Amino acid sequence: MARQTADQLAKKQRNISISEFFEKNKHILGFSTTTRALLTTVKEGVDNALDACEDAQILPDIFVKINEVEGEKDEYAITISDNGPGIVRKQIPKVYGKLLYGSRFHAMKQTRGQQGIGISAAVLYGQLTTGQPTIIESKTGEDMPAYRIKLTIDSATNSPRVMNKEVILMERPHGTMFTIILKGKYVKNKKQSILQYMSSTAIVNPHARFTFIEPDGTNNYFDRVTDELPLETREIKPHPKGVEIGSFMKMAKKTSSYKLTSFLVNDFSRISYTTARKICKEAGVEESSRPTYLSLEKIKKLLDAIDKTSIMAPPTDCLSPIGPELMKKGLSKEIDAKFVFTVSRPPSVFSGTPFQVEAGLVYGGDIPVDSRIGILRFANRVPLLYQSGNCIITKAIENIDWRPYHLEQRGGKGKPIGPAVVLVHVASVNIPFTSEAKVAISNVDEMSKEIELAVRECARQMRSNIKRNKKLKKTEKKFDLIQEVLPEIARKSAEIIEKPMPPIGKVISKIMTVITVEDNIEHLKDTTSSMGKWVSRSHISVNNYTTANKSIDILVKIPKGQVTNVEPAPVKNDGDVLVWEISDLPPAGSTHLKFELSGLDKGDHKQNEILYMGTRSYVIGAKKLHI
Amino acid sequence: MARQTADQLAKKQRNISISEFFEKNKHILGFSTTTRALLTTVKEGVDNALDACEDAQILPDIFVKINEVEGEKDEYAITISDNGPGIVRKQIPKVYGKLLYGSRFHAMKQTRGQQGIGISAAVLYGQLTTGQPTIIESKTGEDMPAYRIKLTIDSATNSPRVMNKEVILMERPHGTMFTIILKGKYVKNKKQSILQYMSSTAIVNPHARFTFIEPDGTNNYFDRVTDELPLETREIKPHPKGVEIGSFMKMAKKTSSYKLTSFLVNDFSRISYTTARKICKEAGVEESSRPTYLSLEKIKKLLDAIDKTSIMAPPTDCLSPIGPELMKKGLSKEIDAKFVFTVSRPPSVFSGTPFQVEAGLVYGGDIPVDSRIGILRFANRVPLLYQSGNCIITKAIENIDWRPYHLEQRGGKGKPIGPAVVLVHVASVNIPFTSEAKVAISNVDEMSKEIELAVRECARQMRSNIKRNKKLKKTEKKFDLIQEVLPEIARKSAEIIEKPMPPIGKVISKIMTVITVEDNIEHLKDTTSSMGKWVSRSHISVNNYTTANKSIDILVKIPKGQVTNVEPAPVKNDGDVLVWEISDLPPAGSTHLKFELSGLDKGDHKQNEILYMGTRSYVIGAKKLHI
Repeated sequence: MARQTADQLAKKQRNISISEFFEKNKHILGFSTTTRALLTTVKEGVDNALDACEDAQILPDIFVKINEVEGEKDEYAITISDNGPGIVRKQIPKVYGKLLYGSRFHAMKQTRGQQGIGISAAVLYGQLTTGQPTIIESKTGEDMPAYRIKLTIDSATNSPRVMNKEVILMERPHGTMFTIILKGKYVKNKKQSILQYMSSTAIVNPHARFTFIEPDGTNNYFDRVTDELPLETREIKPHPKGVEIGSFMKMAKKTSSYKLTSFLVNDFSRISYTTARKICKEAGVEESSRPTYLSLEKIKKLLDAIDKTSIMAPPTDCLSPIGPELMKKGLSKEIDAKFVFTVSRPPSVFSGTPFQVEAGLVYGGDIPVDSRIGILRFANRVPLLYQSGNCIITKAIENIDWRPYHLEQRGGKGKPIGPAVVLVHVASVNIPFTSEAKVAISNVDEMSKEIELAVRECARQMRSNIKRNKKLKKTEKKFDLIQEVLPEIARKSAEIIEKPMPPIGKVISKIMTVITVEDNIEHLKDTTSSMGKWVSRSHISVNNYTTANKSIDILVKIPKGQVTNVEPAPVKNDGDVLVWEISDLPPAGSTHLKFELSGLDKGDHKQNEILYMGTRSYVIGAKKLHI
Repeated sequence: MARQTADQLAKKQRNISISEFFEKNKHILGFSTTTRALLTTVKEGVDNALDACEDAQILPDIFVKINEVEGEKDEYAITISDNGPGIVRKQIPKVYGKLLYGSRFHAMKQTRGQQGIGISAAVLYGQLTTGQPTIIESKTGEDMPAYRIKLTIDSATNSPRVMNKEVILMERPHGTMFTIILKGKYVKNKKQSILQYMSSTAIVNPHARFTFIEPDGTNNYFDRVTDELPLETREIKPHPKGVEIGSFMKMAKKTSSYKLTSFLVNDFSRISYTTARKICKEAGVEESSRPTYLSLEKIKKLLDAIDKTSIMAPPTDCLSPIGPELMKKGLSKEIDAKFVFTVSRPPSVFSGTPFQVEAGLVYGGDIPVDSRIGILRFANRVPLLYQSGNCIITKAIENIDWRPYHLEQRGGKGKPIGPAVVLVHVASVNIPFTSEAKVAISNVDEMSKEIELAVRECARQMRSNIKRNKKLKKTEKKFDLIQEVLPEIARKSAEIIEKPMPPIGKVISKIMTVITVEDNIEHLKDTTSSMGKWVSRSHISVNNYTTANKSIDILVKIPKGQVTNVEPAPVKNDGDVLVWEISDLPPAGSTHLKFELSGLDKGDHKQNEILYMGTRSYVIGAKKLHI
């Protein structure tokens, strides 16, 4: 009986093609609902377009159009075109018609795509739900022909089935365009909508221009903010620290080096000949050993030796962070908040793979006070809109005790409550996504730590800001009390005891011994600008709440923009900083410093960074400049 | 420039083998940390053993051993052996050495494994982290030779590389054993430990016997609770409702039927010839059309017609639910709580795939009052220990407003706080897991609804229980007041006005007009049992808190077990129910009903289900029996 069953079972055992697998498990690739299927397809197409443009060092110009297919229920056509380098003809079928095929899987540098699954999965989903083929058009250069190819995927063999192939005219000198018809549901205004994805993508890709046409014809245009391409990233080799023994064995088997030392130097990053010889000596393995014939035992010794040898951290020019300035700009544009803090952590490493974490925090303003904080997640400049709860970014934020930072949080765990939004960007040569849908990052201790450090740094800035503001408010209240109530009390007391009112100046000065600096910024549309620019008017008041005349120097750092109408005339204005010298400000006296900043985008210049020097008095509202 | 880049890019484009893909993304398969790698390997091995035994209708006897490899740091050997049907020799290399290979992917019935990835992924992880091959031994029957095969996986081609093959002696008549050596970290007592996984698995597989030996030598034995195998599940064909157009096209292309009607009848479930002809007529497609040559247009019409035709729901003998009784038993054993409620929903369907949801809720007892509730998740009788936040089960529970059910919950969303644990089991022909690690279930609306319904049903039972208990407590308090305080007041008042104390019986009766039934169960170890069985002693008191003599019939449903020492003699005791007739119970009088139940396992029989009939008075603590 048992024997029979083993034979019967054997007859049922067979190969499963990767296409068949994902056909059955399409939710794993991000096609779990018809709404999400549209977003995933747009995302895969845009990711590819951006990657291709960056590879060719072209400023991306990307066009996305979604329209309902006439006469069909819930069918949409998604068309995405770019001005990228194009795809050579014979590669087109494989790039679009074969899962697990691509150029970025084996490359160690930061790219959006990394699996060679995304776009072909969208093709597969399209044909599964509508029976329709995908159309691709591509041209690789001015004097080259453009091709149009129509294909489906044979899921049993995971290979493209080209139905039609023709030469066409394309106006652009180079670029790629595709149209996928799929079953979907278009949702206009929602947290996880395609529009939200497009605008988030625009924020973190300021060098790209996007046009997005919705099914109802709405044309959304996201212009580029800069003409500078992100720094070109470089491919790196695996770092010896953290390399798995199995990978080392595989590399040793297929290396073209004949000597162990050259293998170590040529196939890994950061190993010099000196280091290679040191490793061989430590391991007790001959320098001239043939890598292909190394025994497991010797390999283990070599890995132990690598572990003990100090080797430089991997190079980080394979990474392309967004940078604190740009994140600040993006966040200010997106959210109308009072304060914005950002930080870029230095690059770090997990299992030999370089990565870098950046964080931003916006606070106050229009953000609701009694809701859980918002979290914006990005990986390699791609917004992550799904599976937030499963992502290391969310988990790291929830693990922070936010109560010391003045946010409400039950038991010091979970998403805190307060008027704040946190942004985290993780950049890496290999983002450890939780699934092929690439919407959440898996748990990696090193990453978790870096995210926590970055977010905490922002949180600390928020805390000291909240504290400073509270103190200033308190001082003002105290001053009101002294200025208005104390004289009144003195007058009434004098009346009752029928004596003349005593001088209370000394009492006031004894209670108040502080100089306060108040920062106020007003934003106006620049009516002289045709580009929709804004102007800010800063009004900084310096108040002497001490008993003596005071002198103080005030320095204001100038953000990017054109400074005009500075009042009174500063002693210094070099484009980076404005400096005023205030002398002999009498007790209870105030001085007002004003200037305007033009050429701003909406939301720019939320607050001034104010420093002071030249007094030993207690100053609230400005930081002491240490020279 | 652009043209050059397209060519350069083309040179980099190449195939990615599925093994390479998972080598780089091993966290997707559940190998994200060294601790989890051990658990995942055990889980894949045990899943396979259980599936194989069920296929061959063998009571499973599974042995799991984990031990540290001597002289190596963080290396463990995991050995799992079973008494299953074995694997025929020439299939062994593929089953263990090739990802995406197996017998269950194409089968439409409930199994633990479904992807053909699990065990070969563990082999791949082992060789990647330790460089060691996997050893497999298998025997398919009494008079068959047993084989031992040693293999690794060639990840570049995703194929097995057999290093050694020999005939050996195996004592058992049939079965399979494997040993994988891998880098890991063994954690003894933790929420997500292997021991926890083993005991949870034992709960939902009561027909299996497990022996688990930990690295420190601890021997954990989980005996089977029943000798009955779960009902054998049957393979079904795809249901026509919910089949994707692409799948329909593929099926039509490769069917062996020459006529459309036979194709519909033979390749789908629940289509009779009458229904098939109806569908063809509705679609306006010839009954005798050759399925292979159907145009896209005709297929669309056929699918529309199927949509409009009423077709029986898919058969559900492909499913193997646990059942409410068994869940109750499992939960009581696991958690020391006061109340246990369970429910099995009727089978349901999503995209043509049958599934069934079962839920359980335990409340009170030792469960902490001020923590978030616990959630136990199961899919096809496999416990899910990771990624709880990303699972549809957790989400469905968090979406319920628990406040009406007397649990604390901020804003009516999120995990509620209170002394409760919720268990949910989802059984299906195809569980839509969020990733290949199979630890969380993806969002499927139909499933989410069923989970909510099941959990709400348990929650309602909990609520009425809490309510009933509160009411009973209140009544008792009221009675105490009347019995002790009122006479005292009467006495004092009489003293003050110097008159004799008035009779207060009427006052009491006016306030109290209720019969209460109190249920108390005491548990004792059965000293006469050598099997560690338990005895429960029930004591039910019936109190007449009304002003008149009362008659009432009390019925107690008997759970499984041996009833003894029933006092007073009941009027009925048929093994299912005990019935007592109480007549003329005087005001403020009580009657006590007692019985014992033996042959119980620890934690069995938490409360009696008590019904009453024969009175119109208000009764607290028992449900009215409606006949």
